Amino acid sequence: MDSITFNTDDTAAVPPPGTVANIDARRVKIHPDHWYPVAWSRELKAGKTLAVRFAGDPVVLVRPKEGAVFALENRCAHRQVPLDAGVVSGCAIRCSYHGWTYDAAGNCIDVPYLGKGKLPNGVKAYPCREEAGLIFIFPGDAEKSDNFPNLAAAANPDYKVRRFGRMVACHYSFMHENLMDMNHQFLHRKQMGQIRPRYLGRKLGEDWLEVQYTFARTAGKQPLGEAAVFGGRRTADVNDRDVMTIRTEYPYQTLRIVAAGGGEPVMDLWISYVPQDKAQKTIRTFGLLSIHKPGGMLGRAALSIGWPFLVMFTERIFKEDRWIVEAEQAAHDAQDGNWNQEVFPVIRELTALLASCGLPLEGAVEPMVL
Amino acid sequence: MDSITFNTDDTAAVPPPGTVANIDARRVKIHPDHWYPVAWSRELKAGKTLAVRFAGDPVVLVRPKEGAVFALENRCAHRQVPLDAGVVSGCAIRCSYHGWTYDAAGNCIDVPYLGKGKLPNGVKAYPCREEAGLIFIFPGDAEKSDNFPNLAAAANPDYKVRRFGRMVACHYSFMHENLMDMNHQFLHRKQMGQIRPRYLGRKLGEDWLEVQYTFARTAGKQPLGEAAVFGGRRTADVNDRDVMTIRTEYPYQTLRIVAAGGGEPVMDLWISYVPQDKAQKTIRTFGLLSIHKPGGMLGRAALSIGWPFLVMFTERIFKEDRWIVEAEQAAHDAQDGNWNQEVFPVIRELTALLASCGLPLEGAVEPMVL
Amino acid sequence: MDSITFNTDDTAAVPPPGTVANIDARRVKIHPDHWYPVAWSRELKAGKTLAVRFAGDPVVLVRPKEGAVFALENRCAHRQVPLDAGVVSGCAIRCSYHGWTYDAAGNCIDVPYLGKGKLPNGVKAYPCREEAGLIFIFPGDAEKSDNFPNLAAAANPDYKVRRFGRMVACHYSFMHENLMDMNHQFLHRKQMGQIRPRYLGRKLGEDWLEVQYTFARTAGKQPLGEAAVFGGRRTADVNDRDVMTIRTEYPYQTLRIVAAGGGEPVMDLWISYVPQDKAQKTIRTFGLLSIHKPGGMLGRAALSIGWPFLVMFTERIFKEDRWIVEAEQAAHDAQDGNWNQEVFPVIRELTALLASCGLPLEGAVEPMVL
Repeated sequence: MDSITFNTDDTAAVPPPGTVANIDARRVKIHPDHWYPVAWSRELKAGKTLAVRFAGDPVVLVRPKEGAVFALENRCAHRQVPLDAGVVSGCAIRCSYHGWTYDAAGNCIDVPYLGKGKLPNGVKAYPCREEAGLIFIFPGDAEKSDNFPNLAAAANPDYKVRRFGRMVACHYSFMHENLMDMNHQFLHRKQMGQIRPRYLGRKLGEDWLEVQYTFARTAGKQPLGEAAVFGGRRTADVNDRDVMTIRTEYPYQTLRIVAAGGGEPVMDLWISYVPQDKAQKTIRTFGLLSIHKPGGMLGRAALSIGWPFLVMFTERIFKEDRWIVEAEQAAHDAQDGNWNQEVFPVIRELTALLASCGLPLEGAVEPMVL
Repeated sequence: MDSITFNTDDTAAVPPPGTVANIDARRVKIHPDHWYPVAWSRELKAGKTLAVRFAGDPVVLVRPKEGAVFALENRCAHRQVPLDAGVVSGCAIRCSYHGWTYDAAGNCIDVPYLGKGKLPNGVKAYPCREEAGLIFIFPGDAEKSDNFPNLAAAANPDYKVRRFGRMVACHYSFMHENLMDMNHQFLHRKQMGQIRPRYLGRKLGEDWLEVQYTFARTAGKQPLGEAAVFGGRRTADVNDRDVMTIRTEYPYQTLRIVAAGGGEPVMDLWISYVPQDKAQKTIRTFGLLSIHKPGGMLGRAALSIGWPFLVMFTERIFKEDRWIVEAEQAAHDAQDGNWNQEVFPVIRELTALLASCGLPLEGAVEPMVL
Repeated sequence: MDSITFNTDDTAAVPPPGTVANIDARRVKIHPDHWYPVAWSRELKAGKTLAVRFAGDPVVLVRPKEGAVFALENRCAHRQVPLDAGVVSGCAIRCSYHGWTYDAAGNCIDVPYLGKGKLPNGVKAYPCREEAGLIFIFPGDAEKSDNFPNLAAAANPDYKVRRFGRMVACHYSFMHENLMDMNHQFLHRKQMGQIRPRYLGRKLGEDWLEVQYTFARTAGKQPLGEAAVFGGRRTADVNDRDVMTIRTEYPYQTLRIVAAGGGEPVMDLWISYVPQDKAQKTIRTFGLLSIHKPGGMLGRAALSIGWPFLVMFTERIFKEDRWIVEAEQAAHDAQDGNWNQEVFPVIRELTALLASCGLPLEGAVEPMVL
């Protein structure tokens, strides 16, 4: 058996015509009531600011010389110029133009040429947290900001973590679908040789979807980067029983590989796709790729030696994926609609899930279930 | 007599206000029911693909290692990504993303992870022919594809052919009008010295218009490039009786020069202006400039020696023409309409002809004849 | 007293909600019934042309080998291509394409291939004057062109004049407001040390507004460029009584500094902000910065020595101002409206003045005074 077989249950789960799946998922905006990474911790030095974006909204991150990072709208309430060009002053930020000053809660606490009794309105402040080398904000309703994502392996000392990311000119849904459909290994034929995915099944919740695969190498040599994760294989044709689980847990995505023998994942990827522009056709990816450290000094040395190959390998894979999802977005723009013929039911479910978890489309007709 | 005189018949032929001539010809789309060149043969190697465009539609040309070139919509039916990034496999093209495969007729003949019984719809295929070093497609109704253009001298061994072309940022009508109105020699005053066109008359058919000129040199020296075509002239003021015939035969254009003594043309230009973008404000020109080989070894040697000058000469002329027609397009964009005061009746006829042979404007009111 | 105090009269002068001040001043177009500089004299050589813009309209300036500069619409009436690519021929300009020729009044005086009796319509001519090294046009109703601006010190031999200017990507109102609100000295803290403006008051007319300030240095050293204007100060903490008067006299702006002892200004700046594009989001500034020549040979030598520092100093100041007003325009574009909280009543008056002197907004509701 070398092709996916969709059992009856799978097919039944595919949303019928006329439901949410018929909404053009590429036009759906991401839901703001989640925590989103907006920068790497190392990008923001003490006493400095950093301008970032979330879905078109300008945000300034401020790291006082002492105290926690805070996040404000990146505009002065006075003349709307970006605050990131200003001066960090204690636990406040002073606008570069006329010196208006804001605290971590966004209150205007000084206008140099006005009496204190006359201070004007300030700017919006975002809930802000720093975890695992990432700076997160919560752009939506602050009262719903309790659920911080589980970064799992990235916070576990048994794992070595690679942090990576790029700007990618596409809607976030293309990224989720790219990763979840392992039949796209053909795209990486130069990096990975020929491997054949074997689809095991899927599980579905209200805001999550999880699929499992195993892989068999059918031709080509195992690359060094791959060997750094799994260890070397002596033969190419062995039916490999490592299980890969790919999960979209809105709005994040994870990919975990558990070796044939079971136990803790050998690899655990957590990734977030953060819209930059208002149209949400450009995302910044923030990925945490955690590799379980092998036991023993020798194993750890092997991981260190293999690391640069892993980096190179993942960069190449990521470059190919970026190119193809940007081609998908370009086609969607040119075609001004969804022409896809998706034959893999899991991907159709995923598209529907992403659409239903996002912000409702403005002016969209209430989906009817036929 | 040094100015054009328009006789009564000419004036009568100019479309009166309220007819098709009052349509803004720059907004008319080219008619797809013709053969259009989309690439030079040398651009497409065996076993490779080439991405081209016709009026905004992406087209992939595929040259199998054995067999004829074929042309498909340049998108995969699955996820819409361009097929030109794929792999040529026998007489088929395999998409680079998930490996969906299409034959020369556009049928999907393989999806690696689906059974053969479930194959989805394929993509559009274009009639495709390769002639005289050009690859042509027929973008319109394939049942009307019988009339292949006559490339005349370009296929005649008595002629040496120069192939040239460029992207030009203008509507094709500006190109036709530029070439047909020889009063624009003022533009080329640095290349050609001062020559004065003498308009002899015009003939008009349903989808063609033909004008004739002779030229007299009034000042300046004959350039070497021109001499390569016509042979040198001893005196500048002789009334030259070579006859130039410029013909628009929709959608192509030709320019033929027959020497004073008659006989086969000394020069025969065939040129096609192919819209690249949907708005049809950018064209790619494909020109075949055929020069009759002189008799005798000495004459042929002279042509070989003169050839580089001819190339340089035509490049300079073409560069000036490109600059001015792009200026016309830019003015039309800025003015958002047709402000021209065309005083040459032949050009008014040509504009009307091009408009009437193109696709009707969407939403255009039926022209009324007053 | 180190903050601005707004007395009752000031506050009363601020336009109440519902008046013209509530119009978005950034969308108001500049009024064409004024003289506007469009080029520096040195940019236009004898026998040459220069393409310039006013509010999106293309203008060609022509300087005949003998005679005054003239200004026409920069398009040929025939095919709309720019005339600036043409040939200056006596006191006329010949189009580069088919040789149509126009005189200084815009009349078409020759079409090489047409009889003189059939000459077509020409193009618009602009009233044009050359003063103080600037070429001005009057884009509006020529019958209203009597009032030429007073360039004052720039035409006075007692002053040394620096001519400067740049393209700036913002609406002209941001420039007026930037210069008039001296509280923005915080922006120039690196160039000027810390100085504190002291607002003295304002006067208001129908099409003008004038404010006065004095300054006290509170920290930092006086820069060399500033010393070139004012002479060196021995102590930093002296209460400086030089008076700065900033005046918007629609559509121009001036800044004059009179030394503590009174008399002629030590510095007199005249500046004009000329919209380039139709949306009026890009201006070209033309500034005449006149410095009174000190008495005595030694003083003049000091001015010469200080001049390069003055140039560098003003360039740096101007660069900071350009950056911030472009940030204001970018914010206005992104916010698609006026979110400003202006607390300085004089600036609110200025914004209202600029809006009321400009062209009424198309489709704007007549402002109601509540």
